[in-house]
Amino acid sequence: MNKHHIAEWFNELQDRICAGLESLDGGTKFQTDHWEREGGGGGRSRIIQKGDLIEKGGVGFSAVYGVLHPKIQQSLKITLEKSEFFATGVSIVLHPYNPYVPIIHMNVRYFELSDGRWWFGGGIDVTPHYVVVDDAVWFHRYLKRVCDEHHPDYYAKFKKWADDYFYLPHRQETRGIGGIFFDRLVAMLPINKEGRFDFVKAVGESFLPIYSHLANAHRHESYGEKEMAWQLHRRSRYVEFNLVYDQGTKFGLDSNGRTESILMSMPPLARWEYNYVPEPDTPEAHTQNWLRKDIEWVSLEH
Amino acid sequence: MNKHHIAEWFNELQDRICAGLESLDGGTKFQTDHWEREGGGGGRSRIIQKGDLIEKGGVGFSAVYGVLHPKIQQSLKITLEKSEFFATGVSIVLHPYNPYVPIIHMNVRYFELSDGRWWFGGGIDVTPHYVVVDDAVWFHRYLKRVCDEHHPDYYAKFKKWADDYFYLPHRQETRGIGGIFFDRLVAMLPINKEGRFDFVKAVGESFLPIYSHLANAHRHESYGEKEMAWQLHRRSRYVEFNLVYDQGTKFGLDSNGRTESILMSMPPLARWEYNYVPEPDTPEAHTQNWLRKDIEWVSLEH
Repeated sequence: MNKHHIAEWFNELQDRICAGLESLDGGTKFQTDHWEREGGGGGRSRIIQKGDLIEKGGVGFSAVYGVLHPKIQQSLKITLEKSEFFATGVSIVLHPYNPYVPIIHMNVRYFELSDGRWWFGGGIDVTPHYVVVDDAVWFHRYLKRVCDEHHPDYYAKFKKWADDYFYLPHRQETRGIGGIFFDRLVAMLPINKEGRFDFVKAVGESFLPIYSHLANAHRHESYGEKEMAWQLHRRSRYVEFNLVYDQGTKFGLDSNGRTESILMSMPPLARWEYNYVPEPDTPEAHTQNWLRKDIEWVSLEH
Repeated sequence: MNKHHIAEWFNELQDRICAGLESLDGGTKFQTDHWEREGGGGGRSRIIQKGDLIEKGGVGFSAVYGVLHPKIQQSLKITLEKSEFFATGVSIVLHPYNPYVPIIHMNVRYFELSDGRWWFGGGIDVTPHYVVVDDAVWFHRYLKRVCDEHHPDYYAKFKKWADDYFYLPHRQETRGIGGIFFDRLVAMLPINKEGRFDFVKAVGESFLPIYSHLANAHRHESYGEKEMAWQLHRRSRYVEFNLVYDQGTKFGLDSNGRTESILMSMPPLARWEYNYVPEPDTPEAHTQNWLRKDIEWVSLEH
């Protein structure tokens, strides 16, 4: 198993996920853009817009390599002279029309340095416009099962990592209900490279069943102006997270990646109203109240 | 002339500008929010929404002080132990309804360290949704006159500074048609502190006549869906600049400022369409073509 096998598996995952999403959406197909990176490598961006379920979404695959520029070293907190890197991964963000269907994000990635160091990273997290407790509990229990099959410590560790990572300090709120997040997956022995990759594969394969469940549960719920306005507000926080904090976006822009592929995570439309605070005791206020760290979703009574 | 006099002048400038903008808009009034900063100081945010001319805009005043945290030192490229800072300024961003009226931004600021160092900064720049060459030439000639009254080198130097600063490398485009930008205004002798402040005052006072001229020239032009869609697209680039590159936003978030005051520059609504490129030979494509550095607007034949 070398970097090319890993990249190939990621590329095939992209195909399977896109086929599954086209079938789920039912209203349109993905368009495909191949791109090359000046400096080495490239990718394939697959975009879906104005479907039946999905307003805008992207499933990106990339495999890039080249000289590790100082800016990237800085963002990786690595100092090396004359090192080359190889990075491959699949990244997904979907923005649905229906405000009761959540925004979903999934990423699996592999990184290798020419000095022999390598690691996997990834995760899956959900940003509901409206938090539905049953869905959140179901989602976290699903993730826990996936994790538990690989290592008894994975879920607790990676759930906390997601809470800490998908957090907007300037808003003092989480991006959504979290999920799992991990990076530099090297420390949790006795799992070897094969075993780590197996876990990353399992995370990748969990995307379609998770999103299908959450989307089908809510895609036909009716909504109006109020719900759409709240959706646009929630999306603005998504923009803030991705442009201010997201390390993948930062790595992409710093490594001179293809901008439209990096920013395909941006929502189709977003709204900033000055000092918007939902009225007390509304569904919007209840959602706001769930946007915090350290909720033990898996053991929540509901 | 000490820091308190400077802050007081900035505070009064905010009042004059808000009064002028209310009169110009004619449809609504500013709301006012006072806020305090944990760690020292505070400010007064004045917000206008859903006026006749302005869809959303903010005129902020702040005077903050306290310990210079490492993160702020980093963003200022300063290394000091146990230093305290004082910062005061006025900052404006206005988003009009009419796509033919530009977005405008103005900022004047003063910064002082407890070791005795101090400097002014500021600037004014314009982001038209549609570039109108006559307006751009008028605007830059106006700025050049303001600059020339204080130092023969100011305009050329600060115009280039704005070109370089208001630039989105990942889009390879400028934010708009630029203007002037300056920071750490200490080097251009023989002008003393009083003279530098006089220049900053002149920049602040130029805001109302400039915006009134540009707004009145276009506020009653008719527009439709196509122009509004393009406006939302242009605003998304404004969001990208402010969240990814703007040093004022970064300083504000890093110094634990009031988030809603820092992000009052965000547009009311913005749109991201995947890989949107205007059709050749349209007004939108012409505008796109003007979004580059080093255009000598003041000497442009038109």
